[in-house]
Amino acid sequence: MTETSLLPSLSEEQVRRDDRAHVFHSWSAQAQIDPLPIAAALGSHFWDYAGTKYLDFSSQLVNVNIGYQHPRLVAAIQEYAGRLCTVAPPFANDMRSEAARLLADLAPGTLNKVFFTNGGADANEHAVRMARLHTGRSKVLAAYRSYHGATAGAITMTGDPRRWGAEPGLPGVVHFWGPYPYRSAFHSSDVEEEGARALQHLRDTIMVEGPGTIAAVVLETVVGTNGILVPPPGYLEGVRQICDEHGILLVADEVMSGFGRCGEWFAVDHWAITPDLITFAKGVNSGYVPIGGVLISDTVAATFDDRAYPGGLTYSGHPLACASAVASMTIMREEGIVEHARDLGTDVIGPALAKLAENHPSVGDVRGLGVFWALELVRDRDTREPLVPYNASGSDAAPMGEVAAECKRRGLWPFVHFNRVHVVPPCTTTADEVLEGIEVLDEALGVADRYYRG
Amino acid sequence: MTETSLLPSLSEEQVRRDDRAHVFHSWSAQAQIDPLPIAAALGSHFWDYAGTKYLDFSSQLVNVNIGYQHPRLVAAIQEYAGRLCTVAPPFANDMRSEAARLLADLAPGTLNKVFFTNGGADANEHAVRMARLHTGRSKVLAAYRSYHGATAGAITMTGDPRRWGAEPGLPGVVHFWGPYPYRSAFHSSDVEEEGARALQHLRDTIMVEGPGTIAAVVLETVVGTNGILVPPPGYLEGVRQICDEHGILLVADEVMSGFGRCGEWFAVDHWAITPDLITFAKGVNSGYVPIGGVLISDTVAATFDDRAYPGGLTYSGHPLACASAVASMTIMREEGIVEHARDLGTDVIGPALAKLAENHPSVGDVRGLGVFWALELVRDRDTREPLVPYNASGSDAAPMGEVAAECKRRGLWPFVHFNRVHVVPPCTTTADEVLEGIEVLDEALGVADRYYRG
Repeated sequence: MTETSLLPSLSEEQVRRDDRAHVFHSWSAQAQIDPLPIAAALGSHFWDYAGTKYLDFSSQLVNVNIGYQHPRLVAAIQEYAGRLCTVAPPFANDMRSEAARLLADLAPGTLNKVFFTNGGADANEHAVRMARLHTGRSKVLAAYRSYHGATAGAITMTGDPRRWGAEPGLPGVVHFWGPYPYRSAFHSSDVEEEGARALQHLRDTIMVEGPGTIAAVVLETVVGTNGILVPPPGYLEGVRQICDEHGILLVADEVMSGFGRCGEWFAVDHWAITPDLITFAKGVNSGYVPIGGVLISDTVAATFDDRAYPGGLTYSGHPLACASAVASMTIMREEGIVEHARDLGTDVIGPALAKLAENHPSVGDVRGLGVFWALELVRDRDTREPLVPYNASGSDAAPMGEVAAECKRRGLWPFVHFNRVHVVPPCTTTADEVLEGIEVLDEALGVADRYYRG
Repeated sequence: MTETSLLPSLSEEQVRRDDRAHVFHSWSAQAQIDPLPIAAALGSHFWDYAGTKYLDFSSQLVNVNIGYQHPRLVAAIQEYAGRLCTVAPPFANDMRSEAARLLADLAPGTLNKVFFTNGGADANEHAVRMARLHTGRSKVLAAYRSYHGATAGAITMTGDPRRWGAEPGLPGVVHFWGPYPYRSAFHSSDVEEEGARALQHLRDTIMVEGPGTIAAVVLETVVGTNGILVPPPGYLEGVRQICDEHGILLVADEVMSGFGRCGEWFAVDHWAITPDLITFAKGVNSGYVPIGGVLISDTVAATFDDRAYPGGLTYSGHPLACASAVASMTIMREEGIVEHARDLGTDVIGPALAKLAENHPSVGDVRGLGVFWALELVRDRDTREPLVPYNASGSDAAPMGEVAAECKRRGLWPFVHFNRVHVVPPCTTTADEVLEGIEVLDEALGVADRYYRG
């Protein structure tokens, strides 16, 4: 290995030029973006080519749960790359077996089998296919204000504007409203009532759609990009019960909410419910190597004991990706990262954000758990008029853009969606780093307050 | 890095046990499989835990084009893992820029932008979404005897039995018949006529479906798993022309056929045609790290200059995956691997397989190019009755199972599909290795000959 590297050293200018000339970016008007080249990253920080250091309150796309370039995780990837990068699904592989065993150990109930995918979108696709074949029913209920991925099945289940450009989608997907106390679809006056009315709405929807036609209810255990919507007490338990009454499978999309994000290995652990299928990606290995998957209950898995499951992919159970998942889960356990994330939420982030809400009229709502929090910004606390309209773009979205720019100017990289700032740092962020970031937010929210007219 | 490895050393028994207990395998009845644990691999060979060495004539799932554990590729992955494993799509990244630049350089025509995905299925999903939005039309024409991936959109386009369990699929996908001289859908008597009639069939299908309703024709440049169907001279040129006449985009799925497999960087180079979109995965980095993508023409890309493209994924342009693609393309160029693959086809594989056909009555047809070949096995050369029926399973498929078992017993890992044996070794396989493998095939075809009754 004394030979020269095959990987060229590029200047910032080359990176930018070739990015603009050749890279087609997700969810973007390509001529209207100017992506910042990242030069390096470590722990909770990354650096641009000018050496500016950013504290990351976004965990990239809420996936770098273990922080950047965790040395033990990097070492494990390097080690296994030297052993065996790739083996296709028809074979067995040591790290594939081990990753599946660890996942089954961590998962609740009898979720004992794992179908590995490349990411969250295809995990959701396959979960729904399994549910349809297991139940012999074709319909799927998914929530508004949700995101499940961008492939045809996953985007059809998605309940936000990202679906619009991909319609018409897969037949048989029906959307329902989930609980959202701050902007209730059910005119409820408190969290408890919101949970009860959301359950009634789900019951009613199932009634009119036909219980015997519905294969699965698919939901994000805690809704992610669409607002960190933490389900009211009793809601998920109620959904589980409704599903059981009608032989409907419950699919929990934990692509964003799992692996420490909510202060638990799986977000469902917070409510002690067991879905029939859990989909995961992101936090399982913090995206160091692309991987996702479906955790499958014994009952659903048995359907495919003697009947071939009609789905697969070349990189299912990719050895290098599985090795990184094995290492990441082991590190998270050994270093108490899930517990740390839980404590950060309870002891640090929650109280500090509550204080922000006291100081800033524009903060209409604060909600979250673990390292999964949202500040909802409004122009008026009484009417709850959002700081920018739903799905705003261009000048309509300017106030949020200004808040984000102010954060960046002060060295904090924020996660901004619609009229919300999410506080979603790596699970490994220290309390001091979190407080430092929230101090920046405190300054940046002054920008939002200027739009306040309540 | 003196600490103990995070990755456990497992015995074969543990690998098997945890695989059976916890790993849900692609396209399988889970209780009816017994996946072989692979212990190690290098070049064109892999080993099981008993130390049995297999010469790989399958390249896993026709993806390990560069061979196993290429030391320079492994070193590049290890190097970049130490630098920056993951950065999300909203940023720029050096290896993402470089991979995109190299791909654009290699691609024909003005295919200058790359949308990176996790694999081939989502590449095809996004290519179709781009085509629909670019044309404002919703229908997609795809071929029977094709495979495009297992997510909802890709599986709907698929023209083989793998689609059946996922129906109803995405609206607007229409299947047509492609050229297949040995089993013509058009009653043609030679290759030239087959090409002409297949073009007439495509014209007629477009006429009755409505040219103004069709966004794209999607096809595998050389059909892969469904038979290594090499298009007759003039066919692809004709498809390109028909598409141009009607403003229909041509999407070439080169997930399997690209990056040396057909003795060219892109299979379309063999016919010097330029599609509007090319999808790729597998061979771009031999699957060492999961990655795929769409190469986009300037015209299609311009549609999304000022209009947001409604699609994306967390691992689009994954830095570690892109670094491995950069290294892999560089190695292939420096080591002349594409040219080697072309020569293997012309000088070694083609002539040797032709000889097999002379010696074995069960070999009804031999076809291919580069390191992408098929032997079609029959019971009768006159009727062309296949050795096993289309989509055979269980005892119906036994004769092919026996051929495969005989190969394995003799140290050759074959690629078997329906009534065909594909010869698809890594592009780096030496001529001697290829001849050694074909010698084994020579022995194994004796098994097929016993079923011959022509």
